[in-house]
Amino acid sequence: MFQSEVQIRVRYSETDQMGYVYYGNFAAYYEVARTEAFRQMQISYKEIESEGIIMPVLEMRTKYIRPARYDDLLKIIVQVKTKPQGTRITFHYEVFNEAQELLNVGETTLVFVDVKSGRPIALPPIILSKLDSFYN
Amino acid sequence: MFQSEVQIRVRYSETDQMGYVYYGNFAAYYEVARTEAFRQMQISYKEIESEGIIMPVLEMRTKYIRPARYDDLLKIIVQVKTKPQGTRITFHYEVFNEAQELLNVGETTLVFVDVKSGRPIALPPIILSKLDSFYN
Amino acid sequence: MFQSEVQIRVRYSETDQMGYVYYGNFAAYYEVARTEAFRQMQISYKEIESEGIIMPVLEMRTKYIRPARYDDLLKIIVQVKTKPQGTRITFHYEVFNEAQELLNVGETTLVFVDVKSGRPIALPPIILSKLDSFYN
Amino acid sequence: MFQSEVQIRVRYSETDQMGYVYYGNFAAYYEVARTEAFRQMQISYKEIESEGIIMPVLEMRTKYIRPARYDDLLKIIVQVKTKPQGTRITFHYEVFNEAQELLNVGETTLVFVDVKSGRPIALPPIILSKLDSFYN
Repeated sequence: MFQSEVQIRVRYSETDQMGYVYYGNFAAYYEVARTEAFRQMQISYKEIESEGIIMPVLEMRTKYIRPARYDDLLKIIVQVKTKPQGTRITFHYEVFNEAQELLNVGETTLVFVDVKSGRPIALPPIILSKLDSFYN
Repeated sequence: MFQSEVQIRVRYSETDQMGYVYYGNFAAYYEVARTEAFRQMQISYKEIESEGIIMPVLEMRTKYIRPARYDDLLKIIVQVKTKPQGTRITFHYEVFNEAQELLNVGETTLVFVDVKSGRPIALPPIILSKLDSFYN
Repeated sequence: MFQSEVQIRVRYSETDQMGYVYYGNFAAYYEVARTEAFRQMQISYKEIESEGIIMPVLEMRTKYIRPARYDDLLKIIVQVKTKPQGTRITFHYEVFNEAQELLNVGETTLVFVDVKSGRPIALPPIILSKLDSFYN
Repeated sequence: MFQSEVQIRVRYSETDQMGYVYYGNFAAYYEVARTEAFRQMQISYKEIESEGIIMPVLEMRTKYIRPARYDDLLKIIVQVKTKPQGTRITFHYEVFNEAQELLNVGETTLVFVDVKSGRPIALPPIILSKLDSFYN
């Protein structure tokens, strides 16, 4: 299983008048976690795109448990629990605050798409080979 | 069943470099749809908050089918399929573009919380009474 | 002089924990006002981009006078005070709430850029001709 | 003069379909830079607010020179050029990319406000005393 960890400091702009991080902002946090997970696998999402592959999100789920607040230093644990097959990859997220309280859990499924054809494609070999080491 | 409809014009700020509406922005669209649904039920979410009740989101799910794009005039159909009981209310969403293509479907569950105690409370009678007419 | 008006309902996602619209969100409101101003001139910004011209912002100024709040129905008056010459266009904005209080004033200068060369270009004749009628 | 520096990695959510960081997102970057500047002065903006003082922005200016792009690691230099007097404080910003190119320059003026009265107040002594050491 692949697992990595990233820290995000909550910005003022991300709060709402309830005094919590707006529920819609976790999607961006999850994406930061994915980008950093890829970077730790030596994969650059930026390069993936520059080679004509995009990764739109097919599905997202979030279960909110406790609120995040301004200036909290969040820890996001991101996991790819099973080695991806076919055209898709699923990430799981757990968000903690500094008191190690679990704030929310989420899941996103993304698909690899060829920009030119607009069609799903199998995971690029470069990514598969990087993932290999984590599942043996 | 309660159902209402709202239109949202996609803003430039809501696109990303893929040329699509960023997947995280639908949470805000859903919330606009909820606010307008409440307004059509003669309920003001703003007043709910000013009476010391907040409605944090407990759970969100989205299934992305087709991308939304800049300047699209989206139609969001929002439904409360069953009459809410206890402390929670669930909204379902369908987002269409002008070509009547289904772009995504979503679901959010919210809980009524008393600001002072921080605890879940039963649906306020004022909201229940407004909902009554839609479920008889 | 060209002048138009647009209404924007403040979203919950746009507030911050101060209970105000986050100061950075007015940039997106201004851009909605620009897009609608163009639409009222029979110009589609979407089409401008599809013809290989983009309009990045060169400069923005905002003076904040009173806060905007959740669910406010804002009125934005947008003006192009002088007929644009050369490669740039300047918009002025005034934002009012429903009580007709002036919330803030802003100004943005944008440049017309050819996507392929990355260089500023003169205002496209199609836009100039639409503007003509407002300055004679 | 007080000066500090902060790094921000551009998120995918912050880009727009031009492929640039959306011009409105720099307001949030500036605010991160302010928060970190305060932290380096041993001032917690979070604590300021918890003592009943808020700091709304009165004025913002930005001059955009070059675009920021996805995954860029930006460096923001923030300065308080003159020791604040009265009720206001002005921050200047310079944003650089990894190639040390200047992307934009900005300026914000904020006012100290007492939450209860809603009125401007003189800079709290705690902040003034922290600033003292930088202007002697």
